[in-house]
Amino acid sequence: MTQDGRRLRGLRSRETILRQAVGLASVEGLDGLSLGRLAAATGVSKSGFFAHWQDKEQLQLDAVEWAARQWAERVVEPARRAPAGVRRVFALHEARLTFYGDATLPGGCFFFAAQAEFDDRPGAVRDRLARAMRDWQEYIRRMVAEAVTLGELPESVDPAQLAYEIDALGEMVIIHSRLHDGPAALLYARRAVLQRLRALCPDPALLPED
Amino acid sequence: MTQDGRRLRGLRSRETILRQAVGLASVEGLDGLSLGRLAAATGVSKSGFFAHWQDKEQLQLDAVEWAARQWAERVVEPARRAPAGVRRVFALHEARLTFYGDATLPGGCFFFAAQAEFDDRPGAVRDRLARAMRDWQEYIRRMVAEAVTLGELPESVDPAQLAYEIDALGEMVIIHSRLHDGPAALLYARRAVLQRLRALCPDPALLPED
Repeated sequence: MTQDGRRLRGLRSRETILRQAVGLASVEGLDGLSLGRLAAATGVSKSGFFAHWQDKEQLQLDAVEWAARQWAERVVEPARRAPAGVRRVFALHEARLTFYGDATLPGGCFFFAAQAEFDDRPGAVRDRLARAMRDWQEYIRRMVAEAVTLGELPESVDPAQLAYEIDALGEMVIIHSRLHDGPAALLYARRAVLQRLRALCPDPALLPED
Repeated sequence: MTQDGRRLRGLRSRETILRQAVGLASVEGLDGLSLGRLAAATGVSKSGFFAHWQDKEQLQLDAVEWAARQWAERVVEPARRAPAGVRRVFALHEARLTFYGDATLPGGCFFFAAQAEFDDRPGAVRDRLARAMRDWQEYIRRMVAEAVTLGELPESVDPAQLAYEIDALGEMVIIHSRLHDGPAALLYARRAVLQRLRALCPDPALLPED
């Protein structure tokens, strides 16, 4: 095998391991990611495994990176196909709900599980998670601000306030759908943001009625 | 010491241990509650400890009970002093935000941490947590329905939908305030529910303006 071939195979196994790691962490938390256990679950040899990660913290950090990239591909990118403005704000929320509703990750949401676990634990993993969350919030804010600039939301809207609301209404689906409301949580979350945006938008016909 | 005296001392140490357990679990999760560790943290002798709990699951279940009672005392009871109707709905939300803002528990919220941890783990602890959450949701729904009956919210309001919104906007304070927004999260959560209720209430003057 050429050096390029070995490199490619290495990248593929790294990708496979990280996908598995993010799925596992969405269920059991990042702290449950032991190198030995993951090596067993992925069927990668221990030596192959240690070629990528020498310690658990680096694996956790790489899992956060992988999850952030998945979120960008599955939630942010689809929403970018909607026209800029209030429709893109709602498309972002809908793409997130689809991500949850499709059970893309077995535990629902990697970030939800990881944040609840690390919010009280100072260190590199917590910092990386906080940055991912700030980036996401900042992105919602920018989409809201853009809708204001386009005249599709009133000037009186505070983007940080509305971004908080949209994020909270979406994120709580994870707990509510898994612990008691079932699929109704998705409907509540969708309707809450839809009605909020329709009430604010001077031209509600831009958005679906229900 | 009389038998009654011993019994009282036993109840007190049980109470002390559970308070400490709920505080610890709000930071590190219920799974971190090892009997040995808690015995050390509370300074209760191991024999005193094992007089109350033989296994970790029973301790976890008792911690959930204790946390549910604390929530009733610190959030539900204060709200009952507000007049029934839309003011009580908002008082419930405010009492919760005060609970968080006062850092009553070192990790912010016992239930948030425990739910994120146990939503994927079938068993008695998960069932008890799900019941606590259903009770809480059901309580918000009843308060909303009462406000509808009193004519302080319109008939068109779906209590389950509005209860989801109020709960989501409140609960996400835990993650947002600890990971990036800081105290602003409390303001966003307060304003979001206040403006939502004012927009719905035929007599918004029942509620504060801001």
